[in-house]
Amino acid sequence: MPTPCQARVSLASELRTNPMKIELPRVPVRVPGFQFGSAACGIKESGNQDVSIVFAERGATAAAAFTTNRVCAAPVQIARAHVQNGRIRAIVTNSGNANAFTGKTGLRDARRMCEVAARELGVPVRQVLPCSTGRIGVPLPMDRLEHGIREACRTLSADRFYDALAGIMTTDAFPKFAVRTIELAGTPVTLAGMAKGAGMIAPRMRVLVPHATLLSFILTDAHLSPMALRRVLQRALPETFNAIVVDGDTSTNDTVVLLASGQAETAPISERSVPFSDFARACTEIMGELARMVVRDGEGATRVVTVHVRGARTKRDAETAADAVARSPLCKAAFHGGDPYMGRVVCALGYSGAEFDPDRLRIYLNDLLVVEKGTERVRECESEASTIVSQPEFTLSIDLGAGAAQATRICSDLTEDYVRFNSAYRT
Amino acid sequence: MPTPCQARVSLASELRTNPMKIELPRVPVRVPGFQFGSAACGIKESGNQDVSIVFAERGATAAAAFTTNRVCAAPVQIARAHVQNGRIRAIVTNSGNANAFTGKTGLRDARRMCEVAARELGVPVRQVLPCSTGRIGVPLPMDRLEHGIREACRTLSADRFYDALAGIMTTDAFPKFAVRTIELAGTPVTLAGMAKGAGMIAPRMRVLVPHATLLSFILTDAHLSPMALRRVLQRALPETFNAIVVDGDTSTNDTVVLLASGQAETAPISERSVPFSDFARACTEIMGELARMVVRDGEGATRVVTVHVRGARTKRDAETAADAVARSPLCKAAFHGGDPYMGRVVCALGYSGAEFDPDRLRIYLNDLLVVEKGTERVRECESEASTIVSQPEFTLSIDLGAGAAQATRICSDLTEDYVRFNSAYRT
Repeated sequence: MPTPCQARVSLASELRTNPMKIELPRVPVRVPGFQFGSAACGIKESGNQDVSIVFAERGATAAAAFTTNRVCAAPVQIARAHVQNGRIRAIVTNSGNANAFTGKTGLRDARRMCEVAARELGVPVRQVLPCSTGRIGVPLPMDRLEHGIREACRTLSADRFYDALAGIMTTDAFPKFAVRTIELAGTPVTLAGMAKGAGMIAPRMRVLVPHATLLSFILTDAHLSPMALRRVLQRALPETFNAIVVDGDTSTNDTVVLLASGQAETAPISERSVPFSDFARACTEIMGELARMVVRDGEGATRVVTVHVRGARTKRDAETAADAVARSPLCKAAFHGGDPYMGRVVCALGYSGAEFDPDRLRIYLNDLLVVEKGTERVRECESEASTIVSQPEFTLSIDLGAGAAQATRICSDLTEDYVRFNSAYRT
Repeated sequence: MPTPCQARVSLASELRTNPMKIELPRVPVRVPGFQFGSAACGIKESGNQDVSIVFAERGATAAAAFTTNRVCAAPVQIARAHVQNGRIRAIVTNSGNANAFTGKTGLRDARRMCEVAARELGVPVRQVLPCSTGRIGVPLPMDRLEHGIREACRTLSADRFYDALAGIMTTDAFPKFAVRTIELAGTPVTLAGMAKGAGMIAPRMRVLVPHATLLSFILTDAHLSPMALRRVLQRALPETFNAIVVDGDTSTNDTVVLLASGQAETAPISERSVPFSDFARACTEIMGELARMVVRDGEGATRVVTVHVRGARTKRDAETAADAVARSPLCKAAFHGGDPYMGRVVCALGYSGAEFDPDRLRIYLNDLLVVEKGTERVRECESEASTIVSQPEFTLSIDLGAGAAQATRICSDLTEDYVRFNSAYRT
């Protein structure tokens, strides 16, 4: 199977101003029961693909999670209703326009996306999920988009996974996908996920209650009920997509969809079976890989920092503390500078609201103890600490010494490129 | 009276790497009952003044507010205890080192600062307030500092207000002070405030419960009880220092001190008198001016944006909504770009947690209506909107249409200079 590394990854800023440079891998990803299509209908000024279709040939069970942003986009509102059926035939996505904060026109347009795809594919409208990503507040150019959807439906093929992926990308510098083949009760089963997202990333999604725009579709030929799929998603979200932070802005459009075609010849996987655990683990791994890719591709990002908080009094305290560090502009700028300045981390923990005694706080850079007993020890190991925070990936482990709860956030650094990009470009 | 504009203001980034360029005004600020001193003892690598003394000749009534950061600096802990006396003889401040997260050594050092100043000035130790600002997590170089404090005490003069101000500055690009002379019951009274702060700014201070480092001292010769002074501070804080946001990082050292020498020949100003209201208003104005200067000097800042939220269901909702916009990296980057992209503002309001109906939301840029009835109207007035957000100062008025509560935040934009400065320099 190809890995994203096989896709050419260039400097984010270079690619984002010229997204034509993205090269997709050549070895196809196939998931039995699914076909893919795409089109370029002119929503993106670059002329790149901006319509994407994922088609479940004979239908698929479905679970989804959506943004918790109060201003949730029109397609999120429609998709939330449609996914309740538990059975889905297609996902139709446009990129370049979020169809968010577009009022009644937006709702009508999102419904229309489903209608056009449904008619073209010969499936019920209520079994089509619409998704949009891009600029907020601008009505969709429906003439073009309807034409694009029809065109995309005509290109459907089991081999066009990457095209469907290209059709959902916006400011992404590289394509994000992950694939696993596992055995469930002796039968090989495939899981393949695709994702887009680089900015406006701080997902706080709830299953069946909608939240960068982060979009991710995970497809499998395993056989699971909608309820079992929902449980998989509920288990996987907190430590994957809901654990990542690029800028701390939670989008109006975040959507994760999990579809199971059931084409693998297994018995239905029930919730308390061994295969269920195996499947949930594989799905969590894929979502974790995709989530980490989103952070690595964080607009302008040069580092991926795993902030692991343990020893918190409550789960909420652990999350609050990890969030404060992962979102602090001063911590993120220090990470960018490769500066092991723990004073800023301690300061962020201090204002986070989490309960702890500064004298009992311990902080490690990877395995190097840098804060203990109310004092910073960085000066004693300055060169080792600097080497760690100058790596493209490192872990900041924080022990609050106040309890047993823990939480993880995976965040990017804050760079001049992030500011340049987001002050010059309307994502 | 001189205004800060009379002090030379240069590019923040230029000044911050070479703070020697700051020129202070020549017309002195005097407040009857107060003397000022300063020294350079080598805590700052630049060799600039890093010790400051404010001395109340015959004592002053006092009220203070401190950071709410759980990791509050040693001097904050000591000052919080000392200010309870209600009567203060001196404030001794060092810049270049925050004496925060320095454990028991830090507490001992903060006490020692008071002792050295007290002995030199011949006043009780418990009537001295210590303050520190600078790098977190490094013990103070006490030998140098003790020497510096003694030296500063020997330079005391009623004319050295600016020197005391220079001694508290760190990354500030210009000196921040404001002066008013008002009449209270026929007697002229002076109020003079000084402040420092540019980064790590998101004060959430509580009166008698300590929170950039923001430091501000407001001095007056009016005659007020400690309780009356506390009320003035409580009234003034929410709409001044606690309303500003540079980066959203709340410091370990924020301190505001209000001192009244009582040297003006007025009767004591009681809480329900007309002079009290006049005094409180003048004090709020001074604190407001200083707070706005801190934002204008926000590290790398090019714009000051007033985010005014009204029509909120509760005060907390109004604050939450204003905070989300004032802290959103995407909104702040758009402000920097002079981009009237209201989609990001709507998105931030959406994830803030404040209750509102997107269809009832109204947003104005100054007086220009740009969002109404669930849609963005920027396209209809693009050039007008762009002109407004390209100004150095503008107001974003948000009506949530959900109630009658309101709140204001004053924030800077997010610039490449902010990132450059904070990834290269350990503030």
